[in-house]
Amino acid sequence: MTAVHSAWQGAGRRIHMQEVGTRDGLQMEAAFVPTADKIALVNQLSAAGLDKIEVSAFVSPAAVPALRDAEVVLREIERHPGVVYAALVPNVRGAERAIESKVDELNLVMSASETHNLANLRMTRAQSFRALAEVVALGRSAGVAVNVSLSCVFGCPMEGEVAVDEVFDLIERFDQLGVHGLTLCDTTGMAHPAQVARVVAMARVRWPRQTFTLHFHNTRGMGLANVLAAIDAGADCFDASIGGLGGCPYAPGATGNVCTEEIVHALQCMDFHVPVDLARVMHAAARLPALIGHEVPSQLLKAGPRLQLHPSPADFAAVRERALART
Amino acid sequence: MTAVHSAWQGAGRRIHMQEVGTRDGLQMEAAFVPTADKIALVNQLSAAGLDKIEVSAFVSPAAVPALRDAEVVLREIERHPGVVYAALVPNVRGAERAIESKVDELNLVMSASETHNLANLRMTRAQSFRALAEVVALGRSAGVAVNVSLSCVFGCPMEGEVAVDEVFDLIERFDQLGVHGLTLCDTTGMAHPAQVARVVAMARVRWPRQTFTLHFHNTRGMGLANVLAAIDAGADCFDASIGGLGGCPYAPGATGNVCTEEIVHALQCMDFHVPVDLARVMHAAARLPALIGHEVPSQLLKAGPRLQLHPSPADFAAVRERALART
Repeated sequence: MTAVHSAWQGAGRRIHMQEVGTRDGLQMEAAFVPTADKIALVNQLSAAGLDKIEVSAFVSPAAVPALRDAEVVLREIERHPGVVYAALVPNVRGAERAIESKVDELNLVMSASETHNLANLRMTRAQSFRALAEVVALGRSAGVAVNVSLSCVFGCPMEGEVAVDEVFDLIERFDQLGVHGLTLCDTTGMAHPAQVARVVAMARVRWPRQTFTLHFHNTRGMGLANVLAAIDAGADCFDASIGGLGGCPYAPGATGNVCTEEIVHALQCMDFHVPVDLARVMHAAARLPALIGHEVPSQLLKAGPRLQLHPSPADFAAVRERALART
Repeated sequence: MTAVHSAWQGAGRRIHMQEVGTRDGLQMEAAFVPTADKIALVNQLSAAGLDKIEVSAFVSPAAVPALRDAEVVLREIERHPGVVYAALVPNVRGAERAIESKVDELNLVMSASETHNLANLRMTRAQSFRALAEVVALGRSAGVAVNVSLSCVFGCPMEGEVAVDEVFDLIERFDQLGVHGLTLCDTTGMAHPAQVARVVAMARVRWPRQTFTLHFHNTRGMGLANVLAAIDAGADCFDASIGGLGGCPYAPGATGNVCTEEIVHALQCMDFHVPVDLARVMHAAARLPALIGHEVPSQLLKAGPRLQLHPSPADFAAVRERALART
């Protein structure tokens, strides 16, 4: 007999879901989502029970006009106890704005791939690290938690494989700086479950007290499988994006971030403890197409939860009667 | 330390991939795919190394006009040694036609759900079983292998949960008839990995010599995760559909069958032994939109395999030089 390994049985294990659609998703959209709608969306996500919400980004309004209302959104949302309200900050100036806006957590980003870091941030990794070290110090002195997201941990669309040693060197350096969390990002959907299981298990052995979040994209259909592989290796914090908002710049038309409602639905089916109100998330997701002007990748939004039943055909009673008459 | 469980490491284990797009996929399409294109598609799939191909269905041409050319397709395709050429047959008449057309395997279908069986086949399960028992006998006397596909094993869109006992009762009865294989079908994408791991493990304990195929749909984004849960529970034969062809009648716009190239790509990444030429499958999948007149759900077709690299930005050398000058 092949044993039923517990990888597949949640057995009540608590998994933390962190929403990134309001930042990572909306920043990609051509349409500017009105500030009031952003606030309403964050409030719906808070009420639904997400553990953390990356509300917006404190970046240059010229560079990311979609998120130019970060201050207003952070000021106007309802803050639910127990929900961590985070924002992306690229530098000291952004961190100062975010701290003024009373975010609970600063999220810093650089890439594990030298080529990707240069192409996206126009700095070498060494330069990015030095710049982010200043931001970490600022956050610590202000008493605000700092999380660092490392892009391309599982592969770079330009370089290919990224050496685990290079990823771990960056983790070690940020861990030494005293960051409160590290997010391992599969920025373009290159991660596969065998790799995820290995990398997460190794990272947890080496930094047992560090909080790791896993950020997967479903670009090649491996999103949920990667989440499950990471859980089996001990991870319990995951980023996801409502509706599956957010595409992939390297694959036009492909999906990006894993979809919040799909991950929550699957994990709840599997008996993981994910205290998120799925109906509320789906209700919020259903409003997205009107806000952004196009369909969202969420399959669950089309199909509904697995036990949302469909009526029998209109002639079912007659069909049944005729069948039984033949017996 | 959380151990890296072997569920995630293929370690060279052989997985058999069975193509259903040419039957399960094309039968749903409004456009009639010309016979010559169907033949070319099957030949490409044979050359790519699929283990089994469900080539067509011997059903009423009035009921399924898309597959009205089953005889011609079966006669004209190139038969590769080692590839099993199967066809769906609903009844004795269909089986006779299929046997005349020299199929290697008859695939019979009924539902594990009484409501679904009545709604789709207009018979009770008891009536379907009696009718299929005749077809099994015909196949056996003709020396042609018989596989039985059970729909709604993991849930019924009208009834909800389907009791495992009812599924296992049907498996037992077909096993007693001496069928060569049984396919457990997740007809509308209701299966989740915890359930799959349990059901497959139990079935393999009870019928250790039976060949089980798992047929998953990606309707709610759980397709690959279900494949991996089934593999962990001992399964090694999977249906999949090129391009992800085939939708879900209960969820307009939702995807149906898991996508052949996505499953092959993921399993090969994970070091499972899947001797399928991924490039050939993707080449064939890329031609599908022209044949059927619309996009296919395959994400991999949009994004490419994970190590298909992208060029750096055009100004990358200048960006790098400027960055280095600042160091």
